[in-house]
Amino acid sequence: MVERFDAVDVIRTKRDRGVLADDQIDWVIDAYTRGVVADEQMAALAMAIFLNGMNRHEIARWANAMIESGERMDFSSLPRPTADKHSTGGVGDKITLPLAPLVAAFGVAVPQLSGRGLGHTGGTLDKMESIPGWQANISNEQMYRQLGSGSGAIICAAGSGLAPADKKLYALRDITSTVECIPLIATSIMSKKIAEGTGSLVLDVKVGSGAFMKDIDNARELAHTMVDLGTDAGVKTVALLSDMSVPLGLTIGNALEVRESVEVLAGGGPADVVELTVALAREMLAAAGQPDADPEAALKDGRAMDKWREMVREQGGDPDAPLPVADHQKDVVAEASGVLTDMDALKLGVASWRLGAGRARKEDPVQAGAGIELFARPGDRVEKGQKLLTLHTETPERFERAEESLEGTLTIDPNAQPSTPGSVVLERIG
Amino acid sequence: MVERFDAVDVIRTKRDRGVLADDQIDWVIDAYTRGVVADEQMAALAMAIFLNGMNRHEIARWANAMIESGERMDFSSLPRPTADKHSTGGVGDKITLPLAPLVAAFGVAVPQLSGRGLGHTGGTLDKMESIPGWQANISNEQMYRQLGSGSGAIICAAGSGLAPADKKLYALRDITSTVECIPLIATSIMSKKIAEGTGSLVLDVKVGSGAFMKDIDNARELAHTMVDLGTDAGVKTVALLSDMSVPLGLTIGNALEVRESVEVLAGGGPADVVELTVALAREMLAAAGQPDADPEAALKDGRAMDKWREMVREQGGDPDAPLPVADHQKDVVAEASGVLTDMDALKLGVASWRLGAGRARKEDPVQAGAGIELFARPGDRVEKGQKLLTLHTETPERFERAEESLEGTLTIDPNAQPSTPGSVVLERIG
Repeated sequence: MVERFDAVDVIRTKRDRGVLADDQIDWVIDAYTRGVVADEQMAALAMAIFLNGMNRHEIARWANAMIESGERMDFSSLPRPTADKHSTGGVGDKITLPLAPLVAAFGVAVPQLSGRGLGHTGGTLDKMESIPGWQANISNEQMYRQLGSGSGAIICAAGSGLAPADKKLYALRDITSTVECIPLIATSIMSKKIAEGTGSLVLDVKVGSGAFMKDIDNARELAHTMVDLGTDAGVKTVALLSDMSVPLGLTIGNALEVRESVEVLAGGGPADVVELTVALAREMLAAAGQPDADPEAALKDGRAMDKWREMVREQGGDPDAPLPVADHQKDVVAEASGVLTDMDALKLGVASWRLGAGRARKEDPVQAGAGIELFARPGDRVEKGQKLLTLHTETPERFERAEESLEGTLTIDPNAQPSTPGSVVLERIG
Repeated sequence: MVERFDAVDVIRTKRDRGVLADDQIDWVIDAYTRGVVADEQMAALAMAIFLNGMNRHEIARWANAMIESGERMDFSSLPRPTADKHSTGGVGDKITLPLAPLVAAFGVAVPQLSGRGLGHTGGTLDKMESIPGWQANISNEQMYRQLGSGSGAIICAAGSGLAPADKKLYALRDITSTVECIPLIATSIMSKKIAEGTGSLVLDVKVGSGAFMKDIDNARELAHTMVDLGTDAGVKTVALLSDMSVPLGLTIGNALEVRESVEVLAGGGPADVVELTVALAREMLAAAGQPDADPEAALKDGRAMDKWREMVREQGGDPDAPLPVADHQKDVVAEASGVLTDMDALKLGVASWRLGAGRARKEDPVQAGAGIELFARPGDRVEKGQKLLTLHTETPERFERAEESLEGTLTIDPNAQPSTPGSVVLERIG
């Protein structure tokens, strides 16, 4: 095969702050997927994009080329409208678990093709797998059946055929310091989501220490970029910016987060988790043609819980089985009396990861019971010796390193006034 | 072995416009040589350096780390002072051939560890190999003997033990569009030259269409960077900037350039080749303690020619054997009468390369007789039908592509006034 371009010329164009032509983008993504463009060439191109950017048209073409690198799914034949949600990832972010059955309770199909955790943020599949018997890998046939005539909600592993270029590029960016780049983040997320074939999409873009985007300006830019990409591809897309300076809810870790999700589905649960779940559900339902639906009522009256139990059973899980509990616990207590002024999401995420809730390498197992329970939130008045956290692990030698990663947070100010937290939803874009 | 750093952090530092620490540089070059830092990681770092630069201290440390990646030579035990010369490469640049014996005629040892050509600039070894019997690969023992008690001049292949990090990085830069970057060019050249262990070094930095550096500001910056590097490493270093907008001399190609070099050694030859050879010789002789030596006299009275013949014989060559001549010739004539206004060095270099004088891949052979003879220079008055060039090749099917690459040059202005060329040496730095 005679190649249409030389990677050296494509790299040079972006290196010299030029605009990549459509057919250069199509070629470089396709040739990278085929192995004709080498990893070192794509690494140089990714760094040039990181430093010199891409314009809106280049970004759209790049996403499209990644979609074209693999297969596409199509839910348009389902008897139900579909609504999809994606979160950019945060600490304690279990929202997919209550959200999918909640929205499905209104007759909307909710395909949640999810991943496993790597680093300090947990993975939705890791959380669901702490439910005895539950299976992440299911066939396409079962997926369509579950969405079309079953519960309508599904949380499962994404097939390897979707956007293979993204899979390769994502692994490359991870080892070449080219991750935190808005055009590359946006095209990575949106190529997969568009290939999944949903009719509408709600994005939860996290802002704060526990998120990719540490400040709101970058988060806003990422959100706009993704909303534009979705809209241009014919997918109704909106984004909510939500706070990730503190962990979401009062649990971090796999089984611990399932427990909290079930509390929300039972009409209880922490206020921030409920707020974000309901806000995202309203957006998804509006996009699916039900702007007046009342998701709060469905949490209170058991409809969402019924869907959850049905969805878990469809994938072999037992919703009544007790969840795994780690063998070892250790409390972290307040060192003084006063007001808790911070609870850094990144530091708590790293601590939970070190306790065994997350993995350092893709092939590592996770501990279902490991993680952290929180008993106070920033703004709360606490007394010296009062329990702030309980650390959970199967391997008690991990306590020390987990506690090290908590240094510099859980600060207590004896003179501060107690306060109540603001809204977790910061902005709506779209 | 536990690694001291993570490549991801080193790349991030330069990506975010930071200054690399000494031990980061030492580690990343060493780990790249060992294969612990992957090609894709070094490619991302090279692009970050290309776009964000390095300061003088980082450049010095980078060069030093490349030197430390391999062995060093030491000529300090020779009974003669040593003087080395390096050219950044140009079209028709045969200066090493007359220069090495010319300087050796004054009792100075001249080690010219050279390379082969790739792309549109020819390689010194390829040129010398057109001399029947001549050998590029010689042992270290013979090198020291030839320099210490023989002719004093040597042109030979560089050993693979010098700066292996540079060899690896150079090949990587070639395929990742990170070649034309002053810190990387300067450290590549100077790490090899310093590892070669000479006492003094004269740099010939080319400026113009046929050179890496197309404009004088960049060439000046490259020259200053290299002079600083040499000086900091204890090597007396100066640089001349020389014109490479037109080819050097009246021949391009391997045997053709040997013939012209012999003309210079016989006291004749084109004025620009003589000027540059003498200017470089004066610098080398001054650095070796002979500021008042008269190299022009040594070209006129046969001393340089005697050294050339001795040097060629020491490496198995026959200085009296006829040089190869290509089987096929084709003339390019003036299309109009007037003054020749340009003769683009890059276009003529590419034409010569396409005729067979150069190679597309490292493993390709070159044709000894292929190349171009020039019969006019910019500023000359020419008449319609007058011969401007003769193209030489063993493979006449190459004429067409060679002529294509001449399009847009050899322009004739019927109204212009004839002029004489300016000095080929543009500036001295050091």
